[in-house]
Amino acid sequence: MFKPGISVTVPFNFHDVVKAPVSPDSAPWRAFPTYNFVGGHNDADSVDVRALTQACSEVLRREGRDLATYSLQSGPQGYIGLREFLVGKLKYYADIDCNTDDLLLTSGSLQAIDLINEALLQTGDTVVVEESNYGGVLSRLNQLGCKIVTVPVDEQGMKTDLLALTLESLSARGIKPAYIYSIPTIHNPTGSIMSLARRQHLLDLAVQYEVPVFEDECYADLVWNAERPPALYALDKSARVVHIGSFSKTIAPALRVGYVAANWSLMGYLLSLKTDAGSGALEQMLLAEYCTRHFHDHVKKLNSNLQNKLQALTNAIDREFGTSAEYINPPGGIFLWVKLPRPVDTAKLATAAAAEGVAINPGQEWSLQSDARRHLRLCFANPSIETIDEGITKLAQICFREFGVPRLGQNRSRQA
Amino acid sequence: MFKPGISVTVPFNFHDVVKAPVSPDSAPWRAFPTYNFVGGHNDADSVDVRALTQACSEVLRREGRDLATYSLQSGPQGYIGLREFLVGKLKYYADIDCNTDDLLLTSGSLQAIDLINEALLQTGDTVVVEESNYGGVLSRLNQLGCKIVTVPVDEQGMKTDLLALTLESLSARGIKPAYIYSIPTIHNPTGSIMSLARRQHLLDLAVQYEVPVFEDECYADLVWNAERPPALYALDKSARVVHIGSFSKTIAPALRVGYVAANWSLMGYLLSLKTDAGSGALEQMLLAEYCTRHFHDHVKKLNSNLQNKLQALTNAIDREFGTSAEYINPPGGIFLWVKLPRPVDTAKLATAAAAEGVAINPGQEWSLQSDARRHLRLCFANPSIETIDEGITKLAQICFREFGVPRLGQNRSRQA
Repeated sequence: MFKPGISVTVPFNFHDVVKAPVSPDSAPWRAFPTYNFVGGHNDADSVDVRALTQACSEVLRREGRDLATYSLQSGPQGYIGLREFLVGKLKYYADIDCNTDDLLLTSGSLQAIDLINEALLQTGDTVVVEESNYGGVLSRLNQLGCKIVTVPVDEQGMKTDLLALTLESLSARGIKPAYIYSIPTIHNPTGSIMSLARRQHLLDLAVQYEVPVFEDECYADLVWNAERPPALYALDKSARVVHIGSFSKTIAPALRVGYVAANWSLMGYLLSLKTDAGSGALEQMLLAEYCTRHFHDHVKKLNSNLQNKLQALTNAIDREFGTSAEYINPPGGIFLWVKLPRPVDTAKLATAAAAEGVAINPGQEWSLQSDARRHLRLCFANPSIETIDEGITKLAQICFREFGVPRLGQNRSRQA
Repeated sequence: MFKPGISVTVPFNFHDVVKAPVSPDSAPWRAFPTYNFVGGHNDADSVDVRALTQACSEVLRREGRDLATYSLQSGPQGYIGLREFLVGKLKYYADIDCNTDDLLLTSGSLQAIDLINEALLQTGDTVVVEESNYGGVLSRLNQLGCKIVTVPVDEQGMKTDLLALTLESLSARGIKPAYIYSIPTIHNPTGSIMSLARRQHLLDLAVQYEVPVFEDECYADLVWNAERPPALYALDKSARVVHIGSFSKTIAPALRVGYVAANWSLMGYLLSLKTDAGSGALEQMLLAEYCTRHFHDHVKKLNSNLQNKLQALTNAIDREFGTSAEYINPPGGIFLWVKLPRPVDTAKLATAAAAEGVAINPGQEWSLQSDARRHLRLCFANPSIETIDEGITKLAQICFREFGVPRLGQNRSRQA
């Protein structure tokens, strides 16, 4: 029964009732680090503010009333104007034939990943992925309780001869993977582009072992001068590929617009699982208006700016780390995958560097390979060329202080 | 081993590998129904297109470069300008004292609901909710495998005398609910406003039984002339209330911007669970810019338009259904909860009406009360006054054809 006066009590603490097995954030976020080499941020100078503003005004004036309805007048797959742009863009850049019913707009490609995982995975499932990989995918697969089987990557992408052995070995044990996940074009974190021959080999293996393929092409429009082979989705003749992409890397990550291309046998499920009453419409409207006129030219200019930043990064690394740092110069993208000598442990390096305002991704968050702890990922799109240069100088000093390498830098020996 | 030529095969069908226990959407969406009385759509005439366009241009010109970074320069809790606006708005409208660290911007209030559920619920948990309720919450709780215990609602909101009995009965059986969920201000679907006395009673009971409270005030800014009591979050002295709200009902649902107010003992967990790399930033920027200048005047005008539409709806119902339709005139909001006489089954009525372009929410999707199948929810914000009038005329004809009621309408007997 109700007892008056009982409301004088100790404050409630949600810690005591939380069921989710996660660690809470310890404090509110305050600011980005000074030397920020993490996160898929983009180049602020490349944001085409004037044309974006104009595009936004035009589409709002024309269709602003439609904001009164969930999903505008376009239904749960997202703004029809942006899906129409994507049909052309996917054909031009990735050789994909699709129509607007094959496309679902999502709140960033992360929502696409979550929806596909929700549809296709359950605890205990086995998935096959590239050995070095997007940290957000590895953490999700772990969270879902999946068994992660890895295949090494080289400059030609996933080593499909090893994929064949992996699938055969799994098959011999009666295990059919839930999917093969791949980032074939500008692989994260190595930056490699899977060759056409390997793409075809991967698809043939997927058919042979009856496995679906999950293709993530978030970075694929950032190929600079190299040839971009057709997407797996384009090459597939068996309707087993689900393809995702994003506008985060080409236009702006803060907009949170990604997409899925899938045939209806999967799309129907993704729509049932997408219970968010639609993704943000204004951002889709803006992108449709802007991209229809400016995408091609904008991406060309962006890629040129990114290439300059990578050049600044590799110059600074060569100067500060000398032969201590190994990397393969990527043909595009926003990150560099670097290997340091023993005894460097990049998890410890990341902690020490963070204390001095330098943020890096330690290799173990981005790779399951045995020497992951000697790797780090450096994102170069967001910091200015000066910041890149200073940041790498600082990182080399910290690394030398913590691990005694690189001993040589700036053409002279470092002092402890 | 790889076998050349094996790629000639039957097309892959994702139906065969989907793990999620959901039914797929059967076909792509094509268009809204002609007489659309479902969904939380808003009044298109009330969308302030000119001022929204201007606000968007100004904020993009000033801060557009920040779109290059995830979450702009504001961190994972969302655009600081909008959180600052909310601090003032929540104080003015709901008497809530909070600061920007207590606020998390989400992709619609549905993401807020999902995050809170993910933090606080696990399969088998008991939750206490109002008997008639938001369908999206009931379906989520069922999906999560929770036991739903209901408390009836009248014109003063949740009947807290019955809540007391419910909590005592649960306690006697050793059951502590994971939370009490309430929509106290413009309850969905009844439109009622919980009285101040009941709010205090609810909070005292929550303290006594050590239960957290989940307050959903999505519709609360749509109170027309009635007094709006302070939010539960404002009245609570024990830090046990988590509060959510939305801009969908006041500005535009297609924007997908909602929010959570919570103290850090919960907020830290919500941030850990929000793995989407931020909600859409442009919509947050636009809302901050627009609302800071126009929110109050806009909501006043919107409420006047909504009140006119409700008047049109009740006029049409009175004319077409006469005494067959029972409802309580709500003091605000966008929906009317209507009870029809036996033998009407609103699930069947909804199916018959849909075939003729009239969409309604059948009661069983919005209520667990025993006579739910005689109820329906009619959303009146989106259709024009003419469409409301025609749609209700049509609905009465269909209802008479299917169930023989209402026999009287337009002041004369209907013909079968």
